[in-house]
Amino acid sequence: MRQRLHAPIVLPCDPACSVLRDAVVDIEEDGRIGFVGPVSEAPGEAVITALPGILLPGLINTHAHTPMTVLRGMGGDLPLLRWLQDVIWPAEAQLTAADMYAGMLLGSVEMLRGGVTTSLEMYFHLDELARAVLETGARAVLTGGIIEAPGFQWRKLLDVMNGLIDSHGLRYGPGDRIELGYGPHSAYMLSPVVLTEIAEAAHSRNALMHIHVAEAALEDVAVRDAHGSVPKLLASIGFFGGRVVAAHSVHLSEADIALFAEHRVGVAHCPGSNAKLASGMAPVRALRDAGVAVGIGTDGPASNDDLDLWEDMRLAAMFTRLSTMDAAALVAADVLLMATRSGAAVLGRDDIGALETGRWADVVHVSPDAPAFAGGLDVPDAQLLSNLVWAAGARQVRDVWVAGDQVVSEGETTMVDRAEAQAMAGAVTQRLLAAG
Amino acid sequence: MRQRLHAPIVLPCDPACSVLRDAVVDIEEDGRIGFVGPVSEAPGEAVITALPGILLPGLINTHAHTPMTVLRGMGGDLPLLRWLQDVIWPAEAQLTAADMYAGMLLGSVEMLRGGVTTSLEMYFHLDELARAVLETGARAVLTGGIIEAPGFQWRKLLDVMNGLIDSHGLRYGPGDRIELGYGPHSAYMLSPVVLTEIAEAAHSRNALMHIHVAEAALEDVAVRDAHGSVPKLLASIGFFGGRVVAAHSVHLSEADIALFAEHRVGVAHCPGSNAKLASGMAPVRALRDAGVAVGIGTDGPASNDDLDLWEDMRLAAMFTRLSTMDAAALVAADVLLMATRSGAAVLGRDDIGALETGRWADVVHVSPDAPAFAGGLDVPDAQLLSNLVWAAGARQVRDVWVAGDQVVSEGETTMVDRAEAQAMAGAVTQRLLAAG
Repeated sequence: MRQRLHAPIVLPCDPACSVLRDAVVDIEEDGRIGFVGPVSEAPGEAVITALPGILLPGLINTHAHTPMTVLRGMGGDLPLLRWLQDVIWPAEAQLTAADMYAGMLLGSVEMLRGGVTTSLEMYFHLDELARAVLETGARAVLTGGIIEAPGFQWRKLLDVMNGLIDSHGLRYGPGDRIELGYGPHSAYMLSPVVLTEIAEAAHSRNALMHIHVAEAALEDVAVRDAHGSVPKLLASIGFFGGRVVAAHSVHLSEADIALFAEHRVGVAHCPGSNAKLASGMAPVRALRDAGVAVGIGTDGPASNDDLDLWEDMRLAAMFTRLSTMDAAALVAADVLLMATRSGAAVLGRDDIGALETGRWADVVHVSPDAPAFAGGLDVPDAQLLSNLVWAAGARQVRDVWVAGDQVVSEGETTMVDRAEAQAMAGAVTQRLLAAG
Repeated sequence: MRQRLHAPIVLPCDPACSVLRDAVVDIEEDGRIGFVGPVSEAPGEAVITALPGILLPGLINTHAHTPMTVLRGMGGDLPLLRWLQDVIWPAEAQLTAADMYAGMLLGSVEMLRGGVTTSLEMYFHLDELARAVLETGARAVLTGGIIEAPGFQWRKLLDVMNGLIDSHGLRYGPGDRIELGYGPHSAYMLSPVVLTEIAEAAHSRNALMHIHVAEAALEDVAVRDAHGSVPKLLASIGFFGGRVVAAHSVHLSEADIALFAEHRVGVAHCPGSNAKLASGMAPVRALRDAGVAVGIGTDGPASNDDLDLWEDMRLAAMFTRLSTMDAAALVAADVLLMATRSGAAVLGRDDIGALETGRWADVVHVSPDAPAFAGGLDVPDAQLLSNLVWAAGARQVRDVWVAGDQVVSEGETTMVDRAEAQAMAGAVTQRLLAAG
């Protein structure tokens, strides 16, 4: 029988960012959303769950390397290159498949508790990552990271990826929880020949590609010298055209932005990582004005560090206001849609990211018991959205459903024990530290 | 008998930001700190409280208008001037003394739960604000806001302030919880004559002055045209010299910064407010390099919005890294000291802001039960500080003491009921909305 979530506020995250009052979200037997709307119009019988707060779609983290929870804080705040070369890369080289499972499990627990139901990942050992995600009950798009480097057999990895995608593809696990895709790291870590080969594999399978673009000014110097810009290079070799997510996209020209719009490239904006690593502020307003879909990403927890997408929503608004000197450049409704509906668009998906009939019932319940909501929920729409985004955030997430299954209850994960996940990941961290 | 808090980690917030392991903080009968150091060296008998996490000094919020919790989110994300003129000022005009008490009470509860034990306030009805702070058990420096405007009798207010400071001064309430000071709003809301009169009153009483300086580029145009800059004007009229806190200080020249250093003016850096209102990024590194004490402030909850000083610590680091393009410009230890020891220096106080013998026992206990600390507390110092600031933050604050009295236990205030505080402030918000 269908389940009906009934709450004083429902935010479907439609394009207008409507605020529905005294409304319901019906979850059908198959885990999809049935009706969304005022309780007075709700059809038929259902098992009713009355909730005191705000319902909204599960958030979508459009760029993450979540297994790096086991490396969190390592190297403290060293300058970027020293941090990578002296700490992170040596530590990553020691990570086993089981370590990546442990890191992904903890990160998945952490994201669910903060209302993130879907993440786009780039890492290794996708089978272990998928196992972790399925255990917590989350949803993920997993892309295998591919680089060209001594000892890294990119062609073998591409064959593995092709095999995984051909055999499992969009139906990897139960309930479509896992989608697989390709993760060519960047144009500075891969030659045009290899990028072309990966793109052909992805296009032939309609698979998503997930690539770092123009994150830091210095990393792309050689590519810019040779090809003008990373987007120009990618366009020229036919990389675009399918489903492409360009993570970061900080240093873009107007021509680059036009290429993204023309080829419907989605952008994963990672303001926290870009600020912490001093990469710069992405041209979010120009991208949005050009019609490019822009979502929000945390980046990996070794560099951001807490997988709190709400904080990155606020940062997206702050940085865009600072860079445009316009205090209304991005408002609460804008960043909420970036983290939900537009995040789905960035991933080329229309089955998540909104509370709409037919989409998956990925639902977040935000508790109103907080100073942020002292004035109650019976306030004007703009005030409600402002209080939700600017003052409530992750700590008020109380319950979460994915495909209709409750995966967080009273702030804790239901399918995985948080303390066990912490202990397992912590053991990896301690082993890496001991190995020094 | 003395109370001894014993924890795996103690951060005294000494200038080196030392990390003490398996250490204690002794709280003497008078609410001051006795011994701080390794448990093996702790002297004499004490009632021992064993805690599993991290002890650090209570955080200091160096710029707030906390009673504005009752206005939080009003006007949503309107552009600044429309927001002030159409929403905030009309609403503020309706606030009674009792409303300000309710707003201060809620904000004080909220700050304590996030580990902020002291705030520097600028608002009205200091007696009501003091009552709220004393009830929650927090600590505050309360400065009465003074402006020149039709209907606002600044001279009468100054007389009231002088009377309050002469009669109560540094001993307003029990346990030195309240200090009173002057809050001349800004050089654009007050003429040089009035500023001079206020400064003379403050200097003669060694009272703190709390003033907005160079927050937005446009507000000071007339002052800059007439006097070169706000700091130049203030220096020329003898405003500096005593204890002065310059809030915001975004748009400063090198000469302005030199004036601050020369006159030992403290700066309250408010990155969240400055970004949300598109005011700009303050020259934090240049100020620190010049030897100016820089603390961190949230600004009022109508503009920031959640009184979470930890988020502003992260923002301070992010903005300084972005504006200097240096990913190591401010590290976790730096912003932790800004929020504690330097915050006390900004306020011209050496009795709070560090766990040191003789200072008040304002102590925060951060719980280690979180994904942020999955790797445990037995990690290198830099990693520990990084995880504390970048990944744990306000939500992990578990217990708080002010002058040795426990004011937060298990995450909730002990002296005031949070639900009641929310309800009281919420009733004010609803009345303002109904009056519309």
